[in-house]
Amino acid sequence: MAERYRWLHDAISPDLIELHSIKEVIYSGRTKFQAVDVMRTGSYGLCLVLDGKIQSSEADEFVYHDALVHPAMITHPNPETVFIAGGGEGATLREVLVHRTVKKAIMVDIDQEVVEISRRYLPAWHRNSFDDPRTELHFADARKHLQHTKERFDVVVLDLPDPLEGGPAYLLFTQEFYRLVSDRLAPGGVVTVQAGAASWTNYQTFAAVNNTLKAVFPIVRASQVHIPSFTDPWGFACASHQLDPLSLSREEIDGRLAARLSRKPRSYDGESHQAMFVFPRHIRQRLAATRRVISDRKPVYTY
Amino acid sequence: MAERYRWLHDAISPDLIELHSIKEVIYSGRTKFQAVDVMRTGSYGLCLVLDGKIQSSEADEFVYHDALVHPAMITHPNPETVFIAGGGEGATLREVLVHRTVKKAIMVDIDQEVVEISRRYLPAWHRNSFDDPRTELHFADARKHLQHTKERFDVVVLDLPDPLEGGPAYLLFTQEFYRLVSDRLAPGGVVTVQAGAASWTNYQTFAAVNNTLKAVFPIVRASQVHIPSFTDPWGFACASHQLDPLSLSREEIDGRLAARLSRKPRSYDGESHQAMFVFPRHIRQRLAATRRVISDRKPVYTY
Amino acid sequence: MAERYRWLHDAISPDLIELHSIKEVIYSGRTKFQAVDVMRTGSYGLCLVLDGKIQSSEADEFVYHDALVHPAMITHPNPETVFIAGGGEGATLREVLVHRTVKKAIMVDIDQEVVEISRRYLPAWHRNSFDDPRTELHFADARKHLQHTKERFDVVVLDLPDPLEGGPAYLLFTQEFYRLVSDRLAPGGVVTVQAGAASWTNYQTFAAVNNTLKAVFPIVRASQVHIPSFTDPWGFACASHQLDPLSLSREEIDGRLAARLSRKPRSYDGESHQAMFVFPRHIRQRLAATRRVISDRKPVYTY
Amino acid sequence: MAERYRWLHDAISPDLIELHSIKEVIYSGRTKFQAVDVMRTGSYGLCLVLDGKIQSSEADEFVYHDALVHPAMITHPNPETVFIAGGGEGATLREVLVHRTVKKAIMVDIDQEVVEISRRYLPAWHRNSFDDPRTELHFADARKHLQHTKERFDVVVLDLPDPLEGGPAYLLFTQEFYRLVSDRLAPGGVVTVQAGAASWTNYQTFAAVNNTLKAVFPIVRASQVHIPSFTDPWGFACASHQLDPLSLSREEIDGRLAARLSRKPRSYDGESHQAMFVFPRHIRQRLAATRRVISDRKPVYTY
Repeated sequence: MAERYRWLHDAISPDLIELHSIKEVIYSGRTKFQAVDVMRTGSYGLCLVLDGKIQSSEADEFVYHDALVHPAMITHPNPETVFIAGGGEGATLREVLVHRTVKKAIMVDIDQEVVEISRRYLPAWHRNSFDDPRTELHFADARKHLQHTKERFDVVVLDLPDPLEGGPAYLLFTQEFYRLVSDRLAPGGVVTVQAGAASWTNYQTFAAVNNTLKAVFPIVRASQVHIPSFTDPWGFACASHQLDPLSLSREEIDGRLAARLSRKPRSYDGESHQAMFVFPRHIRQRLAATRRVISDRKPVYTY
Repeated sequence: MAERYRWLHDAISPDLIELHSIKEVIYSGRTKFQAVDVMRTGSYGLCLVLDGKIQSSEADEFVYHDALVHPAMITHPNPETVFIAGGGEGATLREVLVHRTVKKAIMVDIDQEVVEISRRYLPAWHRNSFDDPRTELHFADARKHLQHTKERFDVVVLDLPDPLEGGPAYLLFTQEFYRLVSDRLAPGGVVTVQAGAASWTNYQTFAAVNNTLKAVFPIVRASQVHIPSFTDPWGFACASHQLDPLSLSREEIDGRLAARLSRKPRSYDGESHQAMFVFPRHIRQRLAATRRVISDRKPVYTY
Repeated sequence: MAERYRWLHDAISPDLIELHSIKEVIYSGRTKFQAVDVMRTGSYGLCLVLDGKIQSSEADEFVYHDALVHPAMITHPNPETVFIAGGGEGATLREVLVHRTVKKAIMVDIDQEVVEISRRYLPAWHRNSFDDPRTELHFADARKHLQHTKERFDVVVLDLPDPLEGGPAYLLFTQEFYRLVSDRLAPGGVVTVQAGAASWTNYQTFAAVNNTLKAVFPIVRASQVHIPSFTDPWGFACASHQLDPLSLSREEIDGRLAARLSRKPRSYDGESHQAMFVFPRHIRQRLAATRRVISDRKPVYTY
Repeated sequence: MAERYRWLHDAISPDLIELHSIKEVIYSGRTKFQAVDVMRTGSYGLCLVLDGKIQSSEADEFVYHDALVHPAMITHPNPETVFIAGGGEGATLREVLVHRTVKKAIMVDIDQEVVEISRRYLPAWHRNSFDDPRTELHFADARKHLQHTKERFDVVVLDLPDPLEGGPAYLLFTQEFYRLVSDRLAPGGVVTVQAGAASWTNYQTFAAVNNTLKAVFPIVRASQVHIPSFTDPWGFACASHQLDPLSLSREEIDGRLAARLSRKPRSYDGESHQAMFVFPRHIRQRLAATRRVISDRKPVYTY
């Protein structure tokens, strides 16, 4: 009993709350943008918690970051320049830098304090990626940064928090923003997006993000993996003007991984790739039925 | 506030509890074997709750029952006789009877009261399957029933509650029981098993069930789907002496479904079949690493 | 575990929630005015729950009803006519009728359904008081009823739910209403009021009710008792133009109880009376500091 | 929402849990004896939490410490030497030292770390009492200390945690220990004890402590106050061979307070004293019915 008296109440919806026992509160504070906790939970170990929601846990962050980064990187024949929007913990950067093809990785996160907290308390996430000579780190609004840059990127990774009303990210999920991203892609470029919950009972943001990407890119592929600490299965999207992640066979993927990566991903390989992009019928119907296109004037908000 | 003051606390583990708001308690009682509640939750609508755990919800029971029943039925070239162990709500029976090849479906559930409660309060689950002329319903221990029967079955469906210490089902997850099932299969027979949570952080029963089946059957295929009301992704296994679910192409599956079923499943088709049987790398490693064989003397217990 | 999976979440404030295990839901519905549950809790046994708050529990309802009814009844030399506003469960009526002096008890409750539910499911509360020949039961707004009645009462008991915004009772806690009550008192009449939580950290309604009564009555005496199922200590007030509850000695009270009541109250006697009307210094200061007078135009609302 | 995602679950009983929102975790650790948290709650502000139970809150610690210390000190005609067992936060010491008659206050607490944590994080509790020249502070088992001391005390204050199975305090609630305390009292000495919850539905420890004291002392007076952060009303006992707290009038108490104390207590005065020692009838019956005498061989344990 004495061991389980502090609990994190993670409200998935008004009718569904997930309670995680808190073993230890390692850091707790508030940045300009959000409440930040680093805590050890009984359910998933060390966790980064933003505004009361588990953002990333040591038990399964690799599943998330593998799924976000590798399918897009592997789809590209030779990704040298990568742009990351968000990604404060440094783990997205870490997975990008595993690709030996990468010459430059620019990461732009609006919340410098989260990066500093992660640097200090979450070494297993970033593993010193911030100090890699290929890394260029900016603290700014990613949209503004992209508007003013002259650079073009082989891969753009949108590792943003869910679009919350009043939050810093909701204008990074719109058609206008995706057009800007499209303009900043080098020829043959690929964009990969964390796209929210992908559950039968909680799929609206995921479906809308995929549909909005389709308004800008001719090739858009939805994918999903299960990340226990997120409760719901989690959705991603991979978009491009030329390249299709589904065109690669298991063997080609495994070959590219072996040739290009400095270490094996824990959760991703050719078979995982295949598993990610196939959906059961009822989810496919949800996705196909969606007409919603997110725009700056009609943004989407997650609960 | 007034709407959300009663909550179901579903303890996934000592460190993780899921809270569902209760809109309405429709039935609440205790059978010889378990506590039974039929309640309308805010999260997943009408639910059957056994011993405080959501057993089945109107929002997603079709995902579970499709995944349990159809892959095995479709793998078999002509399933005429089916044995169901458990399956109290009648929805497994419902999906079996959708196959027009079926001439006889024997269902054996130990808890008559659960069947009666389901018959009365869960019509959307059974849809009068209990009254189908092909149905034969027994209230008994499935293991004892199989020991004494002379019948042989094309498909055996093990739709049992998780093996809980002191519960009625833990001896229906053992090598000895699977041998008995194997003996009762007709030539070319297939068995399908609900095998517990299949999550990265909660996979022990699932892995052990698959491994135990391998001690009896030469062909064993693990699969999983996401059922929101179960929190974790859910695992199944399909085992046989002759037939392999993976040998069928998407097109063959869709063809058999069109030819044999009296209505389309909501969540299952050829592509869903493919999605179910592919696992990401880290889960494959969990399954491959398991050595545990469950036996009557060393049963497995779920939390 | 199986025994404690349904919980009542009783929100005392946004920062404080009390959870009661639910053993059995006996009735659950919604009247024209409120959500009503009759449930057996593990903490306090059978409870009447209105809009998610425990209104009355079998474990301690006698403490509440004794404290509300007897001090006023005993203060009056010969209470023959009693008016009860609210009191749906019938227990206030029950305690009034224990006084053999009573010739007529008029109870006016706005929510007929709550009275019917109580009659059916809470026999230990009303003990057939509704059928006592001295009882006259009306389903109406108590304020309207008092406006139109020609009757005068020796004792008026205001057994109303807390004044909630949008609820049926907030206009029964105002100066205007207390003036109306004052007009309907017979000479030497006494009014007794349930006045909300009387805790150091939750006393605003209690203090305001007492202060508002002082704007109408020359004699106002605050009292409190501890009712476990209400979490906070609970406050009452006794007001009159002529009679002072503090003028009676322990012995006089015990003498009147012995002479007039058909059975002994479980929690009330001369010593209890003394305990109720004495407050520690810090609470006295809270009460003395309050200037708030509740009026129809500036009503008070409890969380 | 973002403000209320961490909650303290304070289990009052298996069927009753109180949830306090956590605004800030200031300190969190584990001493040799217990888990210690200093946290700011939304319900009661800054709190010391031992083994998951609120031990003391800034909102109402004065109510507790006034009730524990002053009645005994005031009952004594001239308390010069005081022994405190427990009292780690330093607030009991603080209230003792307010009495200008005191020449020496010995405090013996087993948990040095709790005292150090309190010294650092709870300055409003101790207000530098540990540095008062009259203070003598020991870190030891209070029972052992008393066994070996030659000193005699005018007042002994037992400010111990509830007797938990396996905890450090359960042998400080027994008849044998109270005999030892009795031996260490100077002539006319008084002992005061925190005696656990004093609620109608949770009174067993309180009743047993009072009854056990009666086996040693001819004069034993139970008292109670309401401390919101403890949920239940809280019980105390005052015992002596010669002096009776009930023999003092309100005026005598107020006179002694004015003459002896260096500042007025916030919650205690002559009227508060009177309120503390009077119980309603149903609680009196609980206390009178108790036969339990706690002994080293048959200790009492609180949930």
